[in-house]
Amino acid sequence: MRLCTIQRDGKAVVGVKVDGQILDLSKQMPRGPKSVVEILAGGKSVRDAIAKACAKPKAGAVVSEKSAKYLPPIPAPGKILCIGLNYRKHAEETGSPIPDYPVVFCRFNNTLTPHNGKMPRSSHSDQLDWEAELAVIIGRKGRNIAKERALGYVGGYACFNDGSVRDWQRKSGTQFTLGKNFDGTGGFGPDIVTPDELPKGAAPLRIMTRVNGETMQDSDTGDLIFDVATLVSELSKVMTLEPGDVIITGTPSGVAMARKPQPWLKPGDVCEVEIENIGVLRNVITQGA
Amino acid sequence: MRLCTIQRDGKAVVGVKVDGQILDLSKQMPRGPKSVVEILAGGKSVRDAIAKACAKPKAGAVVSEKSAKYLPPIPAPGKILCIGLNYRKHAEETGSPIPDYPVVFCRFNNTLTPHNGKMPRSSHSDQLDWEAELAVIIGRKGRNIAKERALGYVGGYACFNDGSVRDWQRKSGTQFTLGKNFDGTGGFGPDIVTPDELPKGAAPLRIMTRVNGETMQDSDTGDLIFDVATLVSELSKVMTLEPGDVIITGTPSGVAMARKPQPWLKPGDVCEVEIENIGVLRNVITQGA
Repeated sequence: MRLCTIQRDGKAVVGVKVDGQILDLSKQMPRGPKSVVEILAGGKSVRDAIAKACAKPKAGAVVSEKSAKYLPPIPAPGKILCIGLNYRKHAEETGSPIPDYPVVFCRFNNTLTPHNGKMPRSSHSDQLDWEAELAVIIGRKGRNIAKERALGYVGGYACFNDGSVRDWQRKSGTQFTLGKNFDGTGGFGPDIVTPDELPKGAAPLRIMTRVNGETMQDSDTGDLIFDVATLVSELSKVMTLEPGDVIITGTPSGVAMARKPQPWLKPGDVCEVEIENIGVLRNVITQGA
Repeated sequence: MRLCTIQRDGKAVVGVKVDGQILDLSKQMPRGPKSVVEILAGGKSVRDAIAKACAKPKAGAVVSEKSAKYLPPIPAPGKILCIGLNYRKHAEETGSPIPDYPVVFCRFNNTLTPHNGKMPRSSHSDQLDWEAELAVIIGRKGRNIAKERALGYVGGYACFNDGSVRDWQRKSGTQFTLGKNFDGTGGFGPDIVTPDELPKGAAPLRIMTRVNGETMQDSDTGDLIFDVATLVSELSKVMTLEPGDVIITGTPSGVAMARKPQPWLKPGDVCEVEIENIGVLRNVITQGA
């Protein structure tokens, strides 16, 4: 099942993708779940009820892909946990050691921008970089989750663009926080795809970035140093994971920072992150504050 | 004005401290603000209306300090931004260079524990350490705030215990995230004190930690390397600050990690953080998951 959050009549509603169209679940199933998190947390029985309710699209519920105004599929995650240096070649291209344990940093919700949304380049830096990433969305609350059971806590997967302001990522001692938290630099969406539609742990899947149509990153989620089950299990040793929490799993090689000259993103650029069978996330770079 | 959030009849309500008692604002001023964030965002006119409404305590609104069940004064901040190594002697005791720019890491809301609440020592480490910190709570939305205007965006100040799991702070590459995000390790409260009751920028104020009554940290907020106005201004270059966002400003010297032998917190210990004219935050260490 493919789920999104769209804005309709000024409200955030769940969209269900059926045959290339979006069904507004608030119209299709008025007493149904009100948020994507609720659906992910509900598991298979809720998905089955939605599938049944969506079998015959109602006229007032159909939204065309073109006219949809997307919001981030989880508009306000409780946590956005980010993994750094999780593809061998990317660690190498940045001159960093291959990590022996997941490198974890964070994002806050001010950074989220939806599919088709603007990604502002701050006035404080011209070093805005792309990072295609597989996002894991937690579907079930857990703490101290064994690795063998960890994939059972995943509610879905999505595309994420972990837009990074490189000089600010190195400005604040050793901590990546500032360079990863500029307003609107985290592309997220369009859809969350439930695990039943994907290979186990969402790997292997081709993952790419295109800037103005030119391929910049082209790798495979099967190359993750720490796979999805490992990340969920290890993070859960520290903190209770909750439905709607997001883990972005790191980016492959091919970022602007590692190129000569460095083709930083600039206003007017169109940046697309594509993950096989998950979708294409598109953002337009604008001049920001 | 001193504001807290307490649980009463199963609900989170605002408490206003008057003459050593807590007035449940939902009873004292039934049409008044419903949250501390709303009061901070409302500014002086809202505080004046509350002061007027609280002039004659109603019998059903009075809660004794002893019987109050505290919640974190802001139960769910949008962001908790943490500053590392912001007192010279603490940077030195940890063997870190004196930062030339604020070192910023993050906490998520799973870490918050209220005044009188338990602070669990995780089963994954015995290296739980205290860190007394001045917390700044944003009262007004802003981005790119000039330093000269920055204190006008502060809604209040509170005590924070930035409980740190030291081996996990160094486990994840250079990123502090994991060691700072164990469930329940962030003591916060009891009250938020509005700026009109404190010196400008909440400095100078004595700041201390006591463990089982023994003084472990004893310093002054006037020794901050980057003061409150600088932190608010610099962070706002990166992200929009919103009412209820919390900035914890770093800890002085005297942590367990820097002592020989290292007196890590253990179940049964009582850890108190005190900041002059702001309050005393008390937490009991328990055995956690």
